[in-house]
Amino acid sequence: MNKKLVLSSVALVLGAGYGGAALAQAKPDVLVKQRQAAMTLQGKYFGPLAGMASGKVPYNAEVVARNAAYLDTLNKMPWDGFHENTKEIKSRALPEVFTDTAKFKEATNQTQIAVAQLVKVSKGGDEATVKAAINDVNKSCGGCHDNFRAKQ
Amino acid sequence: MNKKLVLSSVALVLGAGYGGAALAQAKPDVLVKQRQAAMTLQGKYFGPLAGMASGKVPYNAEVVARNAAYLDTLNKMPWDGFHENTKEIKSRALPEVFTDTAKFKEATNQTQIAVAQLVKVSKGGDEATVKAAINDVNKSCGGCHDNFRAKQ
Repeated sequence: MNKKLVLSSVALVLGAGYGGAALAQAKPDVLVKQRQAAMTLQGKYFGPLAGMASGKVPYNAEVVARNAAYLDTLNKMPWDGFHENTKEIKSRALPEVFTDTAKFKEATNQTQIAVAQLVKVSKGGDEATVKAAINDVNKSCGGCHDNFRAKQ
Repeated sequence: MNKKLVLSSVALVLGAGYGGAALAQAKPDVLVKQRQAAMTLQGKYFGPLAGMASGKVPYNAEVVARNAAYLDTLNKMPWDGFHENTKEIKSRALPEVFTDTAKFKEATNQTQIAVAQLVKVSKGGDEATVKAAINDVNKSCGGCHDNFRAKQ
């Protein structure tokens, strides 16, 4: 865990930029764009799973396993983008992201735990178990979206 | 490979949407947003590596290995977003993406090969070898950016 935090900090310092571009501290607007990109892709790969869990989309275990693995990686990407230097940038992030950081961190941890569980059960778990894990991920997303994101 | 193609097609049909939203065929503007998100995140995680290869950023083998693994996943995400139904949506994708599909596909394959090689050497390879692999990834990005993307 400490190692991950160190790496995140390194990435935050080095991050941002495109291709061979300059690599100073990431600019706030870049951080916001990057974290929103991670959310967009989580939507891409979680959307079909939510549809399967609710019965709107035919269940496909291979797609669940692939998307769960993608989500496990994507879910590591948004959080260093919620740097304090982004709090003045227009986005749906509520001020509480930057004032109630312990609760925000806990909410992001919960979603990482839920996604990890989905990855685990997606490897051969029965459909009901997998769908329950998908619903748990959905709930864990709500932990941030309900408390730390402005309604549209 | 065939299996991957089948999964990509399934994802294309099911994909898009956020959370529990509707899951019909992804809309063209959503596909463009998603593919651009994948490019944004590839920029986030490749940027520091390009900086290391050019000597602008201190070399850090742990960051290289982590980012290379991230890139290996992210690099699988943009391509189904270049669906023919997106060709009227404003973006930097040139018409050749949709007319010279074989060359485009080959260029995307090259970047996947280059990233896979970087992943491989990032696991314990010496610094010079890793930096050469980073430069090869950079070149492979150019294979699309030079031929299939409008200059800004």
